[in-house]
Amino acid sequence: MLKKNKFSELISMSIILLSILVYSCTNNKALEKSSTVEVLYLKDYGAIVNDGVDDVRAIKKALAACRAQGAKKLVFENGQYDFYPTFAGERYCFISNNDEGLKRIAFDLKDIDHLTIDGQGALLMFHGFISPFVLEDANHIEIENLSVDYSRTFHSEAIILDYDAEGMDVEILEDFPFSVSKGTLLFTDGEKQIGELTTVSKGVTFGSSHILEYDTEKRETAYMVKDFYFGNINGFPAKKLGGRKVRLRVPGLTGTIGNTMVFGPNHREHPGFVVSDSKNISFKNIILHHAGGMGILGQRSHNITVDSCKVTPSNGRMVSVTADATHFVNCTGKIALTNNLFENQKDDATNIHGIYVQVIEKSAEDKVVVQLKHRQQNGFDFLKEGMKIELVRAKSMLTYDTATVKHVNRINKEITEVTFNNKLPANLVIGDAIAEIRDYPEILISNNIIRNNRARGMLLNCRGKTVVENNTFHSPGAAILFEGDSFFWFEQGGVRDCVIRNNVFENCLYGVWGKAIIDVKAGILEDKNTSRYNRNILIEDNIFKVYDDMTLLHAYCVDGLIWRDNTVEKTDAYPETGTSNKRFVIDYSDNVQIDESE
Amino acid sequence: MLKKNKFSELISMSIILLSILVYSCTNNKALEKSSTVEVLYLKDYGAIVNDGVDDVRAIKKALAACRAQGAKKLVFENGQYDFYPTFAGERYCFISNNDEGLKRIAFDLKDIDHLTIDGQGALLMFHGFISPFVLEDANHIEIENLSVDYSRTFHSEAIILDYDAEGMDVEILEDFPFSVSKGTLLFTDGEKQIGELTTVSKGVTFGSSHILEYDTEKRETAYMVKDFYFGNINGFPAKKLGGRKVRLRVPGLTGTIGNTMVFGPNHREHPGFVVSDSKNISFKNIILHHAGGMGILGQRSHNITVDSCKVTPSNGRMVSVTADATHFVNCTGKIALTNNLFENQKDDATNIHGIYVQVIEKSAEDKVVVQLKHRQQNGFDFLKEGMKIELVRAKSMLTYDTATVKHVNRINKEITEVTFNNKLPANLVIGDAIAEIRDYPEILISNNIIRNNRARGMLLNCRGKTVVENNTFHSPGAAILFEGDSFFWFEQGGVRDCVIRNNVFENCLYGVWGKAIIDVKAGILEDKNTSRYNRNILIEDNIFKVYDDMTLLHAYCVDGLIWRDNTVEKTDAYPETGTSNKRFVIDYSDNVQIDESE
Repeated sequence: MLKKNKFSELISMSIILLSILVYSCTNNKALEKSSTVEVLYLKDYGAIVNDGVDDVRAIKKALAACRAQGAKKLVFENGQYDFYPTFAGERYCFISNNDEGLKRIAFDLKDIDHLTIDGQGALLMFHGFISPFVLEDANHIEIENLSVDYSRTFHSEAIILDYDAEGMDVEILEDFPFSVSKGTLLFTDGEKQIGELTTVSKGVTFGSSHILEYDTEKRETAYMVKDFYFGNINGFPAKKLGGRKVRLRVPGLTGTIGNTMVFGPNHREHPGFVVSDSKNISFKNIILHHAGGMGILGQRSHNITVDSCKVTPSNGRMVSVTADATHFVNCTGKIALTNNLFENQKDDATNIHGIYVQVIEKSAEDKVVVQLKHRQQNGFDFLKEGMKIELVRAKSMLTYDTATVKHVNRINKEITEVTFNNKLPANLVIGDAIAEIRDYPEILISNNIIRNNRARGMLLNCRGKTVVENNTFHSPGAAILFEGDSFFWFEQGGVRDCVIRNNVFENCLYGVWGKAIIDVKAGILEDKNTSRYNRNILIEDNIFKVYDDMTLLHAYCVDGLIWRDNTVEKTDAYPETGTSNKRFVIDYSDNVQIDESE
Repeated sequence: MLKKNKFSELISMSIILLSILVYSCTNNKALEKSSTVEVLYLKDYGAIVNDGVDDVRAIKKALAACRAQGAKKLVFENGQYDFYPTFAGERYCFISNNDEGLKRIAFDLKDIDHLTIDGQGALLMFHGFISPFVLEDANHIEIENLSVDYSRTFHSEAIILDYDAEGMDVEILEDFPFSVSKGTLLFTDGEKQIGELTTVSKGVTFGSSHILEYDTEKRETAYMVKDFYFGNINGFPAKKLGGRKVRLRVPGLTGTIGNTMVFGPNHREHPGFVVSDSKNISFKNIILHHAGGMGILGQRSHNITVDSCKVTPSNGRMVSVTADATHFVNCTGKIALTNNLFENQKDDATNIHGIYVQVIEKSAEDKVVVQLKHRQQNGFDFLKEGMKIELVRAKSMLTYDTATVKHVNRINKEITEVTFNNKLPANLVIGDAIAEIRDYPEILISNNIIRNNRARGMLLNCRGKTVVENNTFHSPGAAILFEGDSFFWFEQGGVRDCVIRNNVFENCLYGVWGKAIIDVKAGILEDKNTSRYNRNILIEDNIFKVYDDMTLLHAYCVDGLIWRDNTVEKTDAYPETGTSNKRFVIDYSDNVQIDESE
């Protein structure tokens, strides 16, 4: 080369450079795959905002590119994206406290490591039976700046027109299509049923099996109303009255004329965000208008943050998500709920707990058969080799021993055979419960507003340090509930260090879901004198605004509780119940200090 | 050794023999595993007849032993075995023309090669939501000498007491537990619901969504009654009348007082015997009293024989299995149904067909996206690399081209992307259908009795040589139906060589499921003048006993049909319909010879 003249050298160089240029142009795709591009843009994968076209396939391509290129960020455009189940991938998912099933998933983030999804304010509109986000074995995922909604909600709403002993007349609101045929009201997607009915007719129904009355003006569950459960039904006995008016032929229904009757879905098939066996997950500036189940569900995951998010209805609807806003099961690390608004969800704002299985058989000295007893815990396979577990008496909730798992043999989604490293204690009895002893998460719940949902505010059932501060609660049931039992819900709880301070409890207990604003109870049926399931609770500097003589605190089987510097203010927000309750009810508890000075 | 004296030789021998004996005793298990034992006995694995104890785990052990030891036969004892879902293994199954789902399976014969299961006359009693037998990727399996029944059927039965414009009063028979609550009739397992109703209440319901009237005396579908479908429901609008009497609050129901109303299940979750992707399967001397779906379902399997079996109700029930007695989809080799009784099943005696997918998108010159369109065909992944397929016009059913599959990309249970070896024809249009060109099975249907079931007798939709002889048909609809369409059921049919001889058609067409005893039709909406979907049908030496002027044969778009030496006899088995029909209706057909001389 050195011997050649400058001209030929230049020519050679040019040819080489040109070759590289041509190669890099024609092999753009190949290059993309091998290099690491930090940021990818959803628009480059075929998703166009506001065009009404299904974006499921574009998302799939974009996520595949993120995986292949190790991209750190996927950026949306501001506008509406649409998602239909038709082309979505599917996977059988067991999702605790929601419903298992073969689910179509729009954003399937399985095995993704280090990715920020920046929605740039986009609205993600889901149509029909599709799950928005499932994170499984994912790590370091941040999802931010987007809204989730459904074009047809899984619940339906109607206005109460009238009622008598035999039934209730309602007018079903425009956004909730329905049909009344052959004596049954079914909620539908509004598409006309084509052709004759057969065993395989394709009509889509939005099954419903319970109803609950809401105050149309106050936008909250109506004063002191009860859930009305119908059991295993899909539609309601009914008669057409013309237009959108329907008579529910159910004896005993009552309500306030003009109030809103909400028909709850008979399933929790499509929670908004599922975080399963994942680590370091963060949600920021997410608005969840609706989901067919819980809003955010974390299970067996480590470190989850929900910050500056809103669970809130859209389009004048009464209800946002159809179950809890958030819910965390057998998680570890840190869980932080900060600066959020949780309103009008059809169940609690959060519940952070573990799961108990029941011992149903002792098959050897070191071996038991255990069963998940709650239908919505099926498939929750938390028992793993090497795991330390506690052995708990079902009726006293007393942990009487621990053991280490040697081997797990899963029989089916309910039943597992577990072998331990050592012989099991001789006093083990059938019916005992087993739960994981884990790195119980540290909980921070701060600066949230919780209001107008069904049932309770926060269910605190976690043994890690738990701090609940600077929140405003307006819940129809208990604002804070400490629970845990191993005979009905099979949820492991029992706080060990819990601080509740600087919160405002604003006219809570206007409904039936609790007897005290802060309710410390547990499913303890035996050994009440010795079992102390919840421990070390400090309640200070809170403001309790109450419309009635209600119980502020009910403690049951607690060891260590301090109540100090809390303020009580009387309001006239609701009619008084006419019953006089003790401010503090303390049962079977030790080391409880109540300082009523305000 | 030869130098030792006799005594020491004996001592030595004894020690050796003793050692062998001790070794074989202490290592019995190990020996069992390594040797091939031809016959295993179920009793050796913990299953005891007539003890009422769940035998699911014994079966699992026995089948594991069969696998491990390569046993050729598993022998039961005569008596009753019981099977509950609790400890059964589970697998997500897609079962054509039945319902997909995560199923508990009692006899899971996945991957088993060469095994005879000899029931020795045992009764296998199933309790609840459990599938009896699933054969998957199995080979050379013979199942013989056993009965299958359920303690609580998936359907329910009641006696019609009265009716008016607004509803019908029925008395539900003893064996079918139910509850009427909040205006809804639900069929149950008879267990009391424990505790308050919640979103996760555990009550087991036997969902029902259609009803059909049966003649209580004749033990068959009542004369000319229609199915009454309710769509996507689980229970019925109803009111308690006391005792087992219930008023169905459904306008327009009619019936004959004293007749039996059968409440059909709203699912087909648990067919009796599922044969999937298997080879050389034989059923002999099986009595199927009940199943929650079809009796025997074969899919993508090779060589299936059903001989000397009975599908028949037990315990005075009106209905046996809740859908077709047998059904075969995309099978190959030989299918033989010989010497069987198929009675009172809630659908046809058999249907042997293929499946069409619909082209919904052309994504490249050699690539299409196809969709399974019938809900109960979801997950029927028949398209495989190297497979030859036909391209069919949906509305004319004309095969206009063929192609060979290069690559298959399954998107979900409905949608698959298929790449072909070559460019697809230019005249391919969206909406065209695709089916497998396969070694269409040879069919022998001989010496069977088909009676008192809902709907039709045999649906013959297979291009292999088909012989139907020496059978007796007493079906309320068409005794023999040739079908196929690609717009509703998406079932590939079209016989090429079919003989129907020496059968007795005894007072068929006493119901609404057909207009001719032998009905040759197809879903041909266009090109009727050229499309000849069914070909070469010979109908000879049959006896037709008719109670009315009915159509014996309706041919539609057929090429080649000979009718000869058939006898027609008039009976008075049913009231005459009062309509006069042509004996032979021949539409859009070529080469049809009708010889009416008897």
